Amino acid sequence: MLSRVRKESPVIHHLTNWVTIYDCAQAVKSLGGSPVMAHALEEVGEMAEIASALVLNIGTLTSELVEAMKKAAGVANKRGIPVVFDVCGAGATKFRDKKCQELFCALNIGIIKGNASEVASLAGERVKTKGVDSAVVRSNINGLAAKLAIKNKCTVVVTGAEDIVTDGKFSFRIKNGDRIMSSVVGTGCIAASVIASFAAVENNLTIASAAGLACFEVASEIAAVQSKGPGTFKEKLFDELYLLTPEVVNKSQKITC
Amino acid sequence: MLSRVRKESPVIHHLTNWVTIYDCAQAVKSLGGSPVMAHALEEVGEMAEIASALVLNIGTLTSELVEAMKKAAGVANKRGIPVVFDVCGAGATKFRDKKCQELFCALNIGIIKGNASEVASLAGERVKTKGVDSAVVRSNINGLAAKLAIKNKCTVVVTGAEDIVTDGKFSFRIKNGDRIMSSVVGTGCIAASVIASFAAVENNLTIASAAGLACFEVASEIAAVQSKGPGTFKEKLFDELYLLTPEVVNKSQKITC
Amino acid sequence: MLSRVRKESPVIHHLTNWVTIYDCAQAVKSLGGSPVMAHALEEVGEMAEIASALVLNIGTLTSELVEAMKKAAGVANKRGIPVVFDVCGAGATKFRDKKCQELFCALNIGIIKGNASEVASLAGERVKTKGVDSAVVRSNINGLAAKLAIKNKCTVVVTGAEDIVTDGKFSFRIKNGDRIMSSVVGTGCIAASVIASFAAVENNLTIASAAGLACFEVASEIAAVQSKGPGTFKEKLFDELYLLTPEVVNKSQKITC
Repeated sequence: MLSRVRKESPVIHHLTNWVTIYDCAQAVKSLGGSPVMAHALEEVGEMAEIASALVLNIGTLTSELVEAMKKAAGVANKRGIPVVFDVCGAGATKFRDKKCQELFCALNIGIIKGNASEVASLAGERVKTKGVDSAVVRSNINGLAAKLAIKNKCTVVVTGAEDIVTDGKFSFRIKNGDRIMSSVVGTGCIAASVIASFAAVENNLTIASAAGLACFEVASEIAAVQSKGPGTFKEKLFDELYLLTPEVVNKSQKITC
Repeated sequence: MLSRVRKESPVIHHLTNWVTIYDCAQAVKSLGGSPVMAHALEEVGEMAEIASALVLNIGTLTSELVEAMKKAAGVANKRGIPVVFDVCGAGATKFRDKKCQELFCALNIGIIKGNASEVASLAGERVKTKGVDSAVVRSNINGLAAKLAIKNKCTVVVTGAEDIVTDGKFSFRIKNGDRIMSSVVGTGCIAASVIASFAAVENNLTIASAAGLACFEVASEIAAVQSKGPGTFKEKLFDELYLLTPEVVNKSQKITC
Repeated sequence: MLSRVRKESPVIHHLTNWVTIYDCAQAVKSLGGSPVMAHALEEVGEMAEIASALVLNIGTLTSELVEAMKKAAGVANKRGIPVVFDVCGAGATKFRDKKCQELFCALNIGIIKGNASEVASLAGERVKTKGVDSAVVRSNINGLAAKLAIKNKCTVVVTGAEDIVTDGKFSFRIKNGDRIMSSVVGTGCIAASVIASFAAVENNLTIASAAGLACFEVASEIAAVQSKGPGTFKEKLFDELYLLTPEVVNKSQKITC
């Protein structure tokens, strides 16, 4: 799949947050894809027409941005390209929850991606939130993710020390990654962009998500051993995504069913 | 105080500019805090409810953003959490000055942070401005900072080769830092985010500001000796904020009263 | 010219995209200039009053932002400071094309900068677009660039493996740079900011563009040999722009007429 991304160089359209917008673009570019960030209501539909996948991220949402998301995703749905929805900060405010529900109602989401507390919150649990960082979730996150996947007929990705990818019936676990990632702003957003790049070239979104996450986290592991802290880590992560080969991923991946 | 930030991991809510928004978030994260960037009028109040400090930065302000700042800060004031106001570019345009005055009138600001020309401009001096970079200030900046602190009953932080922190009666000077910092976009904004992280765990805002600045600048000194220029410096700064220990700060700090 | 930028430290006002806004600012800062990013309609005119050059970049344009661009550029035109227009993503959507035409009609653009497909699209060719990445252009790009330059009485810069700078009659080619640049988000935008810094201190915009590009790409070459990939490359690029000397540029530049 990594080779296909490099070969096909899919256009990945993002409507994302202003914090990690560069990182999302550079992650796609490092993999060989072609990122495009456009959010004006007047052009998002047309931009989605030339894309192979669409990423929606509500990290710094506004009502206006959500309207543009609906329009872009409407085109994506019509064309049958995958929509990856990063539910960044879900559960933190009523506004975020309301806008998430609006997007779920209006659209066909292919992949939902969040951390444990975001996914738990979306699945209807009451979780104490820490804004965009994951808080402790006491319920069974596997069950909640599966429930959410079945309800929305989509793939759910829960990132954390150990990631879960599930379509409700079938699940993967990815045990790659490094502790430093939780001290770096944007690793979650980057994960969604990598997953979207893989979903652009692979129809099975659950397999695409698992493969994308494994690639991202193997690259993270290689970057981590060369880094002193979160600053140098992120730059080396872009290097390692760029240098990553299928051989290295196959050797290092820790995906289990 | 650094240990307390790492232990309590305070949520620091930012309404900031689009240039250095990533850097502000990563600085807080590197210290062990939990940054949240949210600016939609519909959610800023609720986000401020879960925060331990609020940062307002007018670097790329719009009227809309300032309205959201007022709402977030209104909640912060009611809850008694500190508001750090980075008066980025104050004095550069009448619009900026007007919006600053609106924020001062509407709100209880805990800490004002700016460079010499921004603080001088706010204190009523006529200064020639260079946009967001500090211009030469001929007046006595110590006196102007103290005047501004007394007028607004707050702490004033003036960053520069030598920083001033004053509540109008009592003052600190911090002589740490490195020359390279003036060639790096975002060091001023990062300073405000670090100060906010400290103000989140320490009630005395003057002491919190001085301690925060000292930590930030000791980390900068360590990063500077490992850097060739402004690009590598910033990445290493995030590393060193992450690795910083109270012992290193105590040994290296040059704070005087 | 590089020495003049370092000495005069011109204020470069940007209305740009949210993806590479930091990189544009840091590039100017690394060269010794003073970047200012401000986009509120209420202040862009006044900010343009203190600037020595203006950069407009439509990477993540909205109608509102384009109105602010018109206002800022109106002031720039009146004052006679150069306007650099980065036509990022031109040809990708009708909205972008329409807004480009509006800006061309309303304003006096000094320098147009784009990749081959953006410039071809502006010159009236039908090009298949890949969003903001250059697609294959079958026509003679030299001729198209010259045509566009004559039509708009301006300098046209086409970036690519080999760059073209032309005023329609006289042309430069710059053969510096490194392959890695096409895997780094923001190199195009940074080029425009560097060109603007040079245009701020040199009246001949064609010569300023060629010199700016050569400096940018010589710095890129030096950064590339020290980098493993796009992440470390960009940080080292900022270092090398900061460290760049006229001697190194003179020795390494590959500008031909």
